[in-house]
Amino acid sequence: MKPKSALAITAVTLAGVVGYLVAASGADESSVPVYVTQIPPGYRDWKVVSVAHEEGNLHSFAIVLGNDVAIKAYREGKLPFPDGSIIAALHYAHVPSDENNKVFGDKQSFVPGPATNVQFEVKDSKKYASTGGWGFGHFNANGKPADAALLKTCFPCHEPAKASDLIYTHYTP
Amino acid sequence: MKPKSALAITAVTLAGVVGYLVAASGADESSVPVYVTQIPPGYRDWKVVSVAHEEGNLHSFAIVLGNDVAIKAYREGKLPFPDGSIIAALHYAHVPSDENNKVFGDKQSFVPGPATNVQFEVKDSKKYASTGGWGFGHFNANGKPADAALLKTCFPCHEPAKASDLIYTHYTP
Repeated sequence: MKPKSALAITAVTLAGVVGYLVAASGADESSVPVYVTQIPPGYRDWKVVSVAHEEGNLHSFAIVLGNDVAIKAYREGKLPFPDGSIIAALHYAHVPSDENNKVFGDKQSFVPGPATNVQFEVKDSKKYASTGGWGFGHFNANGKPADAALLKTCFPCHEPAKASDLIYTHYTP
Repeated sequence: MKPKSALAITAVTLAGVVGYLVAASGADESSVPVYVTQIPPGYRDWKVVSVAHEEGNLHSFAIVLGNDVAIKAYREGKLPFPDGSIIAALHYAHVPSDENNKVFGDKQSFVPGPATNVQFEVKDSKKYASTGGWGFGHFNANGKPADAALLKTCFPCHEPAKASDLIYTHYTP
């Protein structure tokens, strides 16, 4: 029994040391932002966090979805969001619906037009340490990721929302 | 074996006859609309069909969700929707977000305010034969169903959308 047990402890210790070294090496690069470069699979099936409508220069609808980890944290009011949380914002043009307006008899109805982009926030407190633990991603409607110039603007804009772990969207019951 | 098997056939036949009688009796009442009187459980976890924004007298956000049967039909472009499809429209006030406007530096952002009602369309071509196979339900924010006077207005308003099986909301990819 004894040698086996000692081996197990050594393996655990080694894993711990390796983990520490990886983390320490990551710490050296903590000032360089890391962005989300892959679209998380299956996001269109996630549950709804909320929706939004932006005017100004945007004229945009947002459908905000969360993976199960994010939805659970939202529903339990758990802050900060745990690692593994992913929040997706699907953006579309905000366009009038002629079909609905005909039924209402008034120009009052707006629906999502063409998709414009999908944005993601992925929580990984180590990987994305330099941007508050969140990795930011922006993919145009053609699936191409935005360039670094645009991605650099995400974190500064989310930073004021420190009290809600950099997240602006509230859960809509 | 034989008596058992005969019994089984009799039971099945009887069930068939009873089912036929029930359906026939239902047919007599087919001009009396039947409404949805129970909120379908778990609807808040369903996948998103789309969203909408109504102005006019409504100033309303809609989040439209579908159960798995409805979402599958939407994604496959299958019409009419099969029995078992349920579509939910969650309505909220369309209100400005002071929090978001502060970040944008402009009055441009709108989010869901208090919930106003949830509406359901339940497909059951027999039960709801008198209203195009769809049962209509409307529940106020307090969970109370609307009265018959309001529910009577659902079907006539959906009837012009015959080409899309009485459904106005299109699936947003």
